[in-house]
Amino acid sequence: MNWRPAKGVTGPDPERSMSYFGKQYHAPGTAPGTLVPHAAADAPLVIHLMDYTETEVEEVVLRSAADCVPYLDRDSRTWIQVNGQVNPETLRQLGELFDLHDLALEDVLNTGQRPKMEVYDEQLFLTLAMPVHRHGQLQTVQISLFVGPGYLIGFCPLDQDLFEPVRKRMRKPNNRRFASRGIDYLLYALIDLVIDEGYPVLEAFGEQLERLEQEVLARPSHRTLTEIHGLKRELLLLRRMLWPQRELVNELLHTEEGLIQADTQVYLRDCHDHTVQIIELLESFRDMASSMVDIYLSSVSHRTNETMRVLTMIATIFIPLTFIVGIYGMNFEHPSSPWAMPELGWYYGYPMVWGMMILVTSGLVWFFRRRGWL
Amino acid sequence: MNWRPAKGVTGPDPERSMSYFGKQYHAPGTAPGTLVPHAAADAPLVIHLMDYTETEVEEVVLRSAADCVPYLDRDSRTWIQVNGQVNPETLRQLGELFDLHDLALEDVLNTGQRPKMEVYDEQLFLTLAMPVHRHGQLQTVQISLFVGPGYLIGFCPLDQDLFEPVRKRMRKPNNRRFASRGIDYLLYALIDLVIDEGYPVLEAFGEQLERLEQEVLARPSHRTLTEIHGLKRELLLLRRMLWPQRELVNELLHTEEGLIQADTQVYLRDCHDHTVQIIELLESFRDMASSMVDIYLSSVSHRTNETMRVLTMIATIFIPLTFIVGIYGMNFEHPSSPWAMPELGWYYGYPMVWGMMILVTSGLVWFFRRRGWL
Amino acid sequence: MNWRPAKGVTGPDPERSMSYFGKQYHAPGTAPGTLVPHAAADAPLVIHLMDYTETEVEEVVLRSAADCVPYLDRDSRTWIQVNGQVNPETLRQLGELFDLHDLALEDVLNTGQRPKMEVYDEQLFLTLAMPVHRHGQLQTVQISLFVGPGYLIGFCPLDQDLFEPVRKRMRKPNNRRFASRGIDYLLYALIDLVIDEGYPVLEAFGEQLERLEQEVLARPSHRTLTEIHGLKRELLLLRRMLWPQRELVNELLHTEEGLIQADTQVYLRDCHDHTVQIIELLESFRDMASSMVDIYLSSVSHRTNETMRVLTMIATIFIPLTFIVGIYGMNFEHPSSPWAMPELGWYYGYPMVWGMMILVTSGLVWFFRRRGWL
Amino acid sequence: MNWRPAKGVTGPDPERSMSYFGKQYHAPGTAPGTLVPHAAADAPLVIHLMDYTETEVEEVVLRSAADCVPYLDRDSRTWIQVNGQVNPETLRQLGELFDLHDLALEDVLNTGQRPKMEVYDEQLFLTLAMPVHRHGQLQTVQISLFVGPGYLIGFCPLDQDLFEPVRKRMRKPNNRRFASRGIDYLLYALIDLVIDEGYPVLEAFGEQLERLEQEVLARPSHRTLTEIHGLKRELLLLRRMLWPQRELVNELLHTEEGLIQADTQVYLRDCHDHTVQIIELLESFRDMASSMVDIYLSSVSHRTNETMRVLTMIATIFIPLTFIVGIYGMNFEHPSSPWAMPELGWYYGYPMVWGMMILVTSGLVWFFRRRGWL
Amino acid sequence: MNWRPAKGVTGPDPERSMSYFGKQYHAPGTAPGTLVPHAAADAPLVIHLMDYTETEVEEVVLRSAADCVPYLDRDSRTWIQVNGQVNPETLRQLGELFDLHDLALEDVLNTGQRPKMEVYDEQLFLTLAMPVHRHGQLQTVQISLFVGPGYLIGFCPLDQDLFEPVRKRMRKPNNRRFASRGIDYLLYALIDLVIDEGYPVLEAFGEQLERLEQEVLARPSHRTLTEIHGLKRELLLLRRMLWPQRELVNELLHTEEGLIQADTQVYLRDCHDHTVQIIELLESFRDMASSMVDIYLSSVSHRTNETMRVLTMIATIFIPLTFIVGIYGMNFEHPSSPWAMPELGWYYGYPMVWGMMILVTSGLVWFFRRRGWL
Repeated sequence: MNWRPAKGVTGPDPERSMSYFGKQYHAPGTAPGTLVPHAAADAPLVIHLMDYTETEVEEVVLRSAADCVPYLDRDSRTWIQVNGQVNPETLRQLGELFDLHDLALEDVLNTGQRPKMEVYDEQLFLTLAMPVHRHGQLQTVQISLFVGPGYLIGFCPLDQDLFEPVRKRMRKPNNRRFASRGIDYLLYALIDLVIDEGYPVLEAFGEQLERLEQEVLARPSHRTLTEIHGLKRELLLLRRMLWPQRELVNELLHTEEGLIQADTQVYLRDCHDHTVQIIELLESFRDMASSMVDIYLSSVSHRTNETMRVLTMIATIFIPLTFIVGIYGMNFEHPSSPWAMPELGWYYGYPMVWGMMILVTSGLVWFFRRRGWL
Repeated sequence: MNWRPAKGVTGPDPERSMSYFGKQYHAPGTAPGTLVPHAAADAPLVIHLMDYTETEVEEVVLRSAADCVPYLDRDSRTWIQVNGQVNPETLRQLGELFDLHDLALEDVLNTGQRPKMEVYDEQLFLTLAMPVHRHGQLQTVQISLFVGPGYLIGFCPLDQDLFEPVRKRMRKPNNRRFASRGIDYLLYALIDLVIDEGYPVLEAFGEQLERLEQEVLARPSHRTLTEIHGLKRELLLLRRMLWPQRELVNELLHTEEGLIQADTQVYLRDCHDHTVQIIELLESFRDMASSMVDIYLSSVSHRTNETMRVLTMIATIFIPLTFIVGIYGMNFEHPSSPWAMPELGWYYGYPMVWGMMILVTSGLVWFFRRRGWL
Repeated sequence: MNWRPAKGVTGPDPERSMSYFGKQYHAPGTAPGTLVPHAAADAPLVIHLMDYTETEVEEVVLRSAADCVPYLDRDSRTWIQVNGQVNPETLRQLGELFDLHDLALEDVLNTGQRPKMEVYDEQLFLTLAMPVHRHGQLQTVQISLFVGPGYLIGFCPLDQDLFEPVRKRMRKPNNRRFASRGIDYLLYALIDLVIDEGYPVLEAFGEQLERLEQEVLARPSHRTLTEIHGLKRELLLLRRMLWPQRELVNELLHTEEGLIQADTQVYLRDCHDHTVQIIELLESFRDMASSMVDIYLSSVSHRTNETMRVLTMIATIFIPLTFIVGIYGMNFEHPSSPWAMPELGWYYGYPMVWGMMILVTSGLVWFFRRRGWL
Repeated sequence: MNWRPAKGVTGPDPERSMSYFGKQYHAPGTAPGTLVPHAAADAPLVIHLMDYTETEVEEVVLRSAADCVPYLDRDSRTWIQVNGQVNPETLRQLGELFDLHDLALEDVLNTGQRPKMEVYDEQLFLTLAMPVHRHGQLQTVQISLFVGPGYLIGFCPLDQDLFEPVRKRMRKPNNRRFASRGIDYLLYALIDLVIDEGYPVLEAFGEQLERLEQEVLARPSHRTLTEIHGLKRELLLLRRMLWPQRELVNELLHTEEGLIQADTQVYLRDCHDHTVQIIELLESFRDMASSMVDIYLSSVSHRTNETMRVLTMIATIFIPLTFIVGIYGMNFEHPSSPWAMPELGWYYGYPMVWGMMILVTSGLVWFFRRRGWL
Repeated sequence: MNWRPAKGVTGPDPERSMSYFGKQYHAPGTAPGTLVPHAAADAPLVIHLMDYTETEVEEVVLRSAADCVPYLDRDSRTWIQVNGQVNPETLRQLGELFDLHDLALEDVLNTGQRPKMEVYDEQLFLTLAMPVHRHGQLQTVQISLFVGPGYLIGFCPLDQDLFEPVRKRMRKPNNRRFASRGIDYLLYALIDLVIDEGYPVLEAFGEQLERLEQEVLARPSHRTLTEIHGLKRELLLLRRMLWPQRELVNELLHTEEGLIQADTQVYLRDCHDHTVQIIELLESFRDMASSMVDIYLSSVSHRTNETMRVLTMIATIFIPLTFIVGIYGMNFEHPSSPWAMPELGWYYGYPMVWGMMILVTSGLVWFFRRRGWL
């Protein structure tokens, strides 16, 4: 798969999967709605249009945003998907055509937004965070969606069409689901895809967590701890994105605008359920990761203790013995004074010393065993 | 008892009682309501039908889901219980007969759902998580229930009839409770059974906790910590299932649909009370488990400290003594120089050295006692 | 005082004051309202009846529950107090006489209930948890109360009349408080007694906490930690009982039934205040207990550190000295080679070695002082 | 200043500034509203009356509570302040004169109350906790206030007039603030004083915290930890008093009684703001104190580590050297066997041994440096 | 840039960026609204007036607050910005001209306020906290704003015009945004600037956090911990300011006064979103900082463990060897007794001893490897 993250995407740093501060912003005091192009775009701009009625589906790749005009007046639903690094001109064109609010356009450009929903008259603006976990890296990609009567405009800063699975379902000739329902069902389908991407990510986390747990219980190393920390970090950053997403879906469910039909609400409730489950999984993963740090710390203490015990035993046995043999190494003039170590001259003096040493050792070993140190 | 967990059940892994990520899901972007059969079913499908009126109870094992049709038009209450690994065809048949929502059917198939309640017109759909603690393993089994006017359809992925106790009560000839009440009383009876299964599980946890507490206070080992960690893990995973179950019962209590009669509400309130108590027990168990980790860590530190003190005392007493005996082991030409250790030649030189060593030792022991290290 | 806990009481285990899982329950799937007698009753059943009007107070000990009938039709307030291990027959008799709900009766028998309030038509059912702290043990006793128009039925599984202080106040001839008010004032008086029993318990905890604090700061031992853990455990279990009790009083305050008169509400508000204060005390005790564990851990680390420093100093001073004296213990043939330790033959050789050793020691002591280790 | 805490005050113990359980209570089961005098009063009772109209201010010290009668019928606002240890008789007199509720009077006597507000018909009863930080001790003093139309009765168990600053402002001839407003403005002025006393207390805490922080970072000792623990304890106990005080002011703001005029509400909102800020300061202080405990623990570990490294280095260098010199101290009969340490007889044998020792030492030092231990 | 913090600013201490207690307050009991000048002002007072209509923008620097009178009656919007240390006289003048509440004026003078909004009739009073992160120091500056129909008065205690970027936008001839909208848009622009200043501050924190993370994982030192603690402290203090700011913006959004037009609400919602995102970033930074302390502690333990292992290995190998060579250093009279170390006289005695030592060493090394200590 051809995966090249665009420049405007959160955390494109190859070493770190997600940076702590992943927000793009204008200098404080800049006028709201200012559209400044970001650094040279890596991901070329592709504008994909999908126009469908109850009977037909038409797909076009547009040269410029203005080319979508002919599709707008028709009594059909139109989905314009802008993939890649969007330029300010395209945004301005779309803004004028669909009467998009300048603050919303600014948010499309400044990725790293907190997922949120904004209602402008009869238009909805949503930013979503899609977690992706590939090549050992976790990234969140900002998906921006404008929904109005009969149209949906999506933005994705990657040069890849993440919504291909939805498109595939729409193209199926006998699929009446999209055809017979309003644009809100398309909105649901996209949100559902974005949210469900959380499952494989969390499954990967779950597996990593289980591997780390076995490691931390069996043979913990400093690397294990570093990895747990990295996991906690990724969970934390992901959580920062997913909590507001949950609120967003909830808000969408309770929005009073006529945009979401009762029929689609059932589907959105299912979506909401998924966000809740994903967050609960996340929180329980965080809890377990913290518990593993405790296990790790205890393991290190435990090993220090084990090492200490060995040292203590060896030292405690041999230091007294060394003292004893040291005594008989003293150069007192044994023959001249009867007080000066007469044992040195005894016939059984040497075995006696050994006996003494064996006695001392046995005594210490017995003492250690009784105290539970051996 | 013949207990063989089916494939679709959460955490059938023989080594780990519950995996961190215990959810079955379709690839993101799959159309909602897609029914894909899971891996080869271990638990054969058994469809049990129980039809009862005020006067009679009839029990049948159905060959296929379609066989339930004759019982539907009658003025009776019908309980269809589908045990074992359900196949998509059966689901589709039931879906058409009872007009079940495709999202609900998908949830029946994809076990590991978060317990939830969904209201479809005059139909209720509930998924419950039944904790079971056998053979030293904790599992949660997803029970899915559809309730409509006069019928209840239950799904359980095990090849065992978990609701046998309810059936037994229904069969009792003079039991007017089920007979005289609506299908909502049956719903209560099943929910009550599922929730009350939490009590033996928690009782087992409580006993394990008390055993671990005694162990951690008396003779903590690394194994104790591992076991506490495992307990925390199981409590956490269980909690993830039981919190939404509490919400579910609460929602059911406050549902405005005419399905739950005032009479049954009293019983459901009792159910709600049990969920609350179970969760409070769980939370307090979690608290105590965390406190035990502290005790363990402190014990390890304490033992390290004890070991250190022994080492220090032995070393501190014998190292100076070894130094003293080392001195008199030096080969200075004592006779030739009056400065070169004349003690070696003294009559009482050797006892004097012993006296010095006893003095040093006593001094150190006194010092240690005063500092509280002995 | 004659204190013998009955069998059905939470935590009658002589070793442990409160067990983690202190709930009695029927096997899951048992029909609701089943009344199964528990193990042989230690506390004999005593039914005490108190009937009072504005002018008179009558007290009787009933032979059986049915004997209360003559008092029911009179225009008086009747308090039936059932002390000791209640048997199913008595419960059934009372249930029929006063039309008590079978779920409530089950809760009376299965002690260890979470404190709760249930409203049945014009009847209130309450279960309370009364903390008692005697003989160094903390126990919670379940008090069950039924309140209806003109009557109050209380159950206490102990063979002791805990409500004697209330009875005493009622017997006072000029006490118009109970006489002039409804049964709700009696209810208040009982609840107030149950809640205020928390104060002496918490006072005892507070004193224990202060003693432990002094111990942990002055001379912490492993026993201190064990005691702190025990305290935390008791606080946790107590908290599990007192939180729902607070909710209960609050619910009672806001109950819309006509049972509680405005006059009595002022008193119940005072009760509510006490529950809140008791819980706040509990929570702050828990906080301080946790903080003490930190102090303990730090003390252990500190002492390890102190021990280490002593060992290090002794070893660092004497090991080099022992090396020096070891050198001159070597058996090189000093006279034959001028390179082989000529100091051994020098006139001031031995004092010179001592000088060297004093120098080394002073240097190390100076170094230690500068580094702050001495 | 003449500061003598009265007996009924929370925590007058000279050693501990605040005890964990600082509540005075009657034995459980005592009739509500019982007024029992506490231990002999240290602080003599002084009843101060201040009567003011738009034009005049009159101040009297009353002999007994009954002496306030002449001031009550006048069309003026009357402030009766009872300082010192109040006796039950005075309370009863005031209770009858102003129709005060017996539960409220009990709360005046039993100090250590949780701050709360109680509305009795057209009367307000408030208990406040005033934190005072003098002579290195923190105390909370219970201030009880009754407010009715045209009168305010205050109780303070100290023999000192804490409200002197307010009195001073009232006495100012051109101060129209109190004169032109109702009794609610006086209530505000007293509450404001009580709350603002929190600022100097917290400022002192802030300074202590900064001093402790510098200590813990630069030269942590066990005393530092003890002091941090003491600070945490005081913060916790203070917090227990200030949280309900915040609720109280909020309740007062939203009370529907006509007692608080719109004009005074602005001032009370300012008060509320102060309570919120004080609590936020408190919470952040608690957070930082916890963080400092971590720093302390890490410092102790760090120092242990440093000590260990010194010991290890010394031991690792000298133990092998001592072994080497030990070899040449063996008494093998070197001349008789060519295998028995011929070096001893070599001309350069001794320097060679030194060379070997220098080599070993250099090797170990190099190894240590490479591993980062030196 | 000419940055000199004024005296009244929170935390101007050069060593510490923010003090724990950064609030200026009057002595408790002082009359509300008392305006006392603070210590000699470092930042000279500059009053800047900006008057704009749909067609014109006029800028003046006022000599005294009274000079603004001519601009007030005109049908224009007037922005008076008071920079530098404001004196009580100026406040009183403005207070009389615009009918400002005395409590609000007191809050302008006593900086270190908790951000809050107060509604006085048709006037809004806001205090904001602007975080600034320059020269390695974090400071919060209190911005006070009064907004009424057609005017906005701002106060900033610095001698620097922080709102220059807004002024620049207003001066642009073709900028119709400010011209065509009410004073509420100006209010939005200022709040937006204050809030967005949080982004560069948090970005700097994020970078510091990443640097510290790398340090703590690669080569943790005590300085790393000190820095993490400092970071936690700054985050905590910042959080204390930003939480109420979030509430403030939310309150402003839901204020019912006619001051904020629907058009501006969209912009304020964007502001609210930013405060929420900033706080979420802050909280996640705090979480990660805490996690890093764990890593640090574990690293120290780990290193202690490593050091211990080296010591243990060296000691365990050489202490037995030293004992062995000590034996043969004893002065037993080998020739006279056959029991006294006959090895000393053997031809291969010495090599045999070496063999024994090699054996012992190999055995210990093998044992260590098997136990995983080498």
